[in-house]
Amino acid sequence: MYKIKGSVWIEGDRGAFIGTGRVMLLEKIKELGSITVAAKSMKMSYRHAWELIDSMNKQAKSPLVEATSGGVGGGGTKITKEGEKAIILFRDLQKRFHKFNEEESKRIKL
Amino acid sequence: MYKIKGSVWIEGDRGAFIGTGRVMLLEKIKELGSITVAAKSMKMSYRHAWELIDSMNKQAKSPLVEATSGGVGGGGTKITKEGEKAIILFRDLQKRFHKFNEEESKRIKL
Repeated sequence: MYKIKGSVWIEGDRGAFIGTGRVMLLEKIKELGSITVAAKSMKMSYRHAWELIDSMNKQAKSPLVEATSGGVGGGGTKITKEGEKAIILFRDLQKRFHKFNEEESKRIKL
Repeated sequence: MYKIKGSVWIEGDRGAFIGTGRVMLLEKIKELGSITVAAKSMKMSYRHAWELIDSMNKQAKSPLVEATSGGVGGGGTKITKEGEKAIILFRDLQKRFHKFNEEESKRIKL
C-alpha cells in the first residue's frame, strides 16, 4: 500500500516563517511561559530558540512572542494575539494538508 | 507577503517510494536511456542512482526500470509501462499539491 506523505510551511520575505518546529516552539512557550523552559522541553538550545523567535517576530506585522515584565515570578515570555492567530492558522493549514494527503493516497493506482 | 511551500512524496511499505529526486531520475533515464548518463546529468553517483532504482523496483508491483539487451549500441536501460505510470502519477500529484499551496497562500491573513 502506498501513502502520500509531505510537509508544508509558510514562507515570508526572508525565507521560513512558520513550520512544524516553529509552531511547536510557539505552543510550548504558550504552555510554559518561558523561552528557556520551552527550548529545553524540545531539546533545543536557547540560542536556536531565540533565533527562530527573532525570525518570526521580524517577519510578522507585529511580534508573535513578547516579554512579560514583573509579577510574582519575575518576567517571563508570552504569545501575543498575533502569535495565537499564527498558531491556529498553521494548525488549520496542516489539517487541510493531511486531508489532501489522505484523499491523494486513495487515488494511487500503481 | 506569505506563501505556502512544501513537498510531497509517496511512501511504500519500505519507506520512500517516489519523490522529487526519484521521479527526476526516472525521467532522465527515459530521456537518456542509461543509468550512468542519467546519474551523471544529475551529479549523482551511479551507485546512489542504482540504489534508488533498486528501492523503487522492489517496492513496485513490477519493475519501473529495466535493462534493454543488444541492439546497435549494446544494452541500455529503459522505463517500463509501470515506470511511465509512476512518473505521470507523481507529476499529477505535484500539480494538485501546487494548486493546494496556491489556494492556501491566498487564505493567509496575518
